Amino acid sequence: MLKEFKVEKTPDKEELKKKVKAEQERLAKSQMKIKEKKLPIMVIFEGWGAAGKGSVIGKVIKELDPRFYSVATMSAPPTAENKRYPFLYRYVVEIPEAGKFKFFDTCWMEEVTSGVFNKTLDDKGYEKRIDSINTIERQLSDNGYLVMKFFFHIDEKEQKKRLKDLKDCKNTKWRVDKGDLWQNKHYEECFEVYDRYLKDTNRDHAPWYIIDAKDKDNATYQVLSYLNQGIDTALSNQSKAAPIRQNIFPLRKTPLLKDIPLDKELSDEEYKKELKKLQKKLRDLHNVLYRKKIPVIIAYEGWDAAGKGGNIKRITDALDPRGYIVHPIASPEPHEKARLFLWRFWNRLPRTGHIAIFDRTWYGRVMVERLEGFCSENDWQRAYNEMNEFEHELTEEGAVVIKFWVQIDSDTQLKRFTDRQNTPEKQWKITDEDWRNREKWDLYEDAINEMLQKTNTKFAPWYILESVDKKYARIKALKIVIDSIEKAIKEK
Amino acid sequence: MLKEFKVEKTPDKEELKKKVKAEQERLAKSQMKIKEKKLPIMVIFEGWGAAGKGSVIGKVIKELDPRFYSVATMSAPPTAENKRYPFLYRYVVEIPEAGKFKFFDTCWMEEVTSGVFNKTLDDKGYEKRIDSINTIERQLSDNGYLVMKFFFHIDEKEQKKRLKDLKDCKNTKWRVDKGDLWQNKHYEECFEVYDRYLKDTNRDHAPWYIIDAKDKDNATYQVLSYLNQGIDTALSNQSKAAPIRQNIFPLRKTPLLKDIPLDKELSDEEYKKELKKLQKKLRDLHNVLYRKKIPVIIAYEGWDAAGKGGNIKRITDALDPRGYIVHPIASPEPHEKARLFLWRFWNRLPRTGHIAIFDRTWYGRVMVERLEGFCSENDWQRAYNEMNEFEHELTEEGAVVIKFWVQIDSDTQLKRFTDRQNTPEKQWKITDEDWRNREKWDLYEDAINEMLQKTNTKFAPWYILESVDKKYARIKALKIVIDSIEKAIKEK
Repeated sequence: MLKEFKVEKTPDKEELKKKVKAEQERLAKSQMKIKEKKLPIMVIFEGWGAAGKGSVIGKVIKELDPRFYSVATMSAPPTAENKRYPFLYRYVVEIPEAGKFKFFDTCWMEEVTSGVFNKTLDDKGYEKRIDSINTIERQLSDNGYLVMKFFFHIDEKEQKKRLKDLKDCKNTKWRVDKGDLWQNKHYEECFEVYDRYLKDTNRDHAPWYIIDAKDKDNATYQVLSYLNQGIDTALSNQSKAAPIRQNIFPLRKTPLLKDIPLDKELSDEEYKKELKKLQKKLRDLHNVLYRKKIPVIIAYEGWDAAGKGGNIKRITDALDPRGYIVHPIASPEPHEKARLFLWRFWNRLPRTGHIAIFDRTWYGRVMVERLEGFCSENDWQRAYNEMNEFEHELTEEGAVVIKFWVQIDSDTQLKRFTDRQNTPEKQWKITDEDWRNREKWDLYEDAINEMLQKTNTKFAPWYILESVDKKYARIKALKIVIDSIEKAIKEK
Repeated sequence: MLKEFKVEKTPDKEELKKKVKAEQERLAKSQMKIKEKKLPIMVIFEGWGAAGKGSVIGKVIKELDPRFYSVATMSAPPTAENKRYPFLYRYVVEIPEAGKFKFFDTCWMEEVTSGVFNKTLDDKGYEKRIDSINTIERQLSDNGYLVMKFFFHIDEKEQKKRLKDLKDCKNTKWRVDKGDLWQNKHYEECFEVYDRYLKDTNRDHAPWYIIDAKDKDNATYQVLSYLNQGIDTALSNQSKAAPIRQNIFPLRKTPLLKDIPLDKELSDEEYKKELKKLQKKLRDLHNVLYRKKIPVIIAYEGWDAAGKGGNIKRITDALDPRGYIVHPIASPEPHEKARLFLWRFWNRLPRTGHIAIFDRTWYGRVMVERLEGFCSENDWQRAYNEMNEFEHELTEEGAVVIKFWVQIDSDTQLKRFTDRQNTPEKQWKITDEDWRNREKWDLYEDAINEMLQKTNTKFAPWYILESVDKKYARIKALKIVIDSIEKAIKEK
């Protein structure tokens, strides 16, 4: 990419200023349409040190309404706190919502190429990062995001001159860091690394635009005109449906719900004995987990009144409250609905050593959202792979992901619903919606079977909790959590 | 890709037959919608020798109306005749038209992986092929094609067994070729090559689907269900606009039309002398060209009445009629309009050693089609890059590409139009459309300037022929053709 790029003569200064102004106005004019069409726009600025990204961003946003954009400054290396999350986390939480711009002053590229420069990232690690980045950029694009990527290019001599000028002035001295100086000294080596990265991530949905950054007005003009063009293209799209990709993740065998025997039970006595023993064990493990910096994600799905709440309670009873959090997942808030559907889960990921328990999860996409028509058919069909990719990313980054399906039969549900209805202190637990959902039991069962078949991966398995006897289900859940954590500790 | 693929247990035979039948009917049902929506569908079958591609194709088309599909059998290695065209040529001429299926029994993959197996393709050559393939697949997709790619996978043991069974029967013996046997002997090596190819071409617009081909009904079912899913996705798309990519090709400096002096002229005497000398030289060169197997493409564009016809005549007068062809390009025929817009030019490429002269060209896309609204804005904006890619492919494969813009001013055109109108034997040359186009002179001039700026590449340059004095323009054209051919001969 960089190798092919040819620097052109800078156009006439006066002419350029007029063109910049025209493009700024063009961008300002498209704001209302972007809002109306709910287009989220992610603009990524990467490039050489001292190439002038910051000042160009300033000019790009000049005519924009501050309510419609924000800037994420990501150029500092990840902090110790950042490192307690998956690599992509600190970027993904920053993505724009529908109808708005987010300008990234460096993004995932910078972190990866820096890793190559300072040799903290080997070839295999690099490949893994490239896969993660291509995957998230594809997901964003498939979900309607416009992703524009600009690489600011200057040559060795120009960079040297700029760094010297910055260093020589006492007001700007602080802006030159060791990395910039190192980069200039190893310009050719860096050039190769950048060129390779740009080639590896120059995907069809989100191609790179290389910006000749020698002249600031010229760089501004290039960015603005590519950006306006990209926006025009995106605004002319209507319900772009993305291909449903073949599953490439290893799947476990999964029975159909109807074939799962539900007669398993435990006596009160056995239950109490086991519960005490297992909770003690989990309590101890939680400490090891913390020391070993392993993040754990426990996802609960199940029929209404299957006993999710009580099950979760038996897990959390054993945990130190400083080390876990339970996320009850209801329908998405407006600011969540306005982003990539997985965003609100990215946003709730546990740091290393912590446990996040999700009471209902991202799988709502292929159950309630599918059946109630809250998303398009292409959306939920694509989601199986998107969710597998999400969980793959988490486990590749060291997390333990456990998914529980809490299973009961339709008669048991009816009994529990009726009981709730007839018991004053339980009435809050039953709503008209529960009864309506119950009418769609068969449709749900088909959707759940498909979900379990398609997302029961080796790295993030589904476990069925037979919960006609809630005691049995609780003990089984505790055992699985303990086993999974022990395995992760052993492998760490 | 292949490495991640896991063979599942084959489902129950009876169940499978029912599912195949259902998918066949689903496919048949979508035919009318495919026709209505004018969706062109390119289905590519690749895979191991003896994996059963042919018989599955037979089952896939079973319920289709023969008017809506055809099969291209490409599995034979390229013939000597094929090799006289660019690598992609024999495939591109076979692409389906809008509303129809084309099933490819192997396509460009087979030729590339075979080249790696028999070591006729080194690493650099392989990379070049991958670029060509990713580019044409993207172009097809950007132009509304659904491209579905299936790789038929069987393991070493299964392949061995099948080859043995085929060999042992005198009716099928002929179907086992040396290549298949070699492949089985070097299964692991081939596996690596296939895996790499699949990974390198697994693009977002046209992902690979790996088919577990151990059982034929199962393979048929997998192909049909992926195909039906792909069709559903494509049919739900509406005016999918593709990103306008940044130019990566080296461009030459290009003046604006208004800055080109048009006062150049030649005396009759000089003209005759030069013409004779240059035509003699070109005649000789044509022979060398033929022996050296260099294909030449000369593209003419220019204002109405600029003198294209007479200019072309002075070139062809010097050529052996067996070695050149002139393609007058009018508006596309229905069967041409129903395909990738570059298809009708792919279809008219010269073989090695031959010269193809285009009287008007693919550049119609960014002139008349742009200004008359015969294509969408995204179409013509994308076309600059698509045409550069097209010409890059041709020159990379050894062709000489020369592009002439025959330039006159508006007054000269008016004089010639009036002259044509007033001269009975020239009246056929002037139509109402010519007068209408003339009214849009300024719009055309802007479009032409943009075209020249964006497509004046180093490998396929534009040359301005100043044609107020037609004699001058003819001599200049001859010189440029001669120079370009001499340069190509020297470099060969």
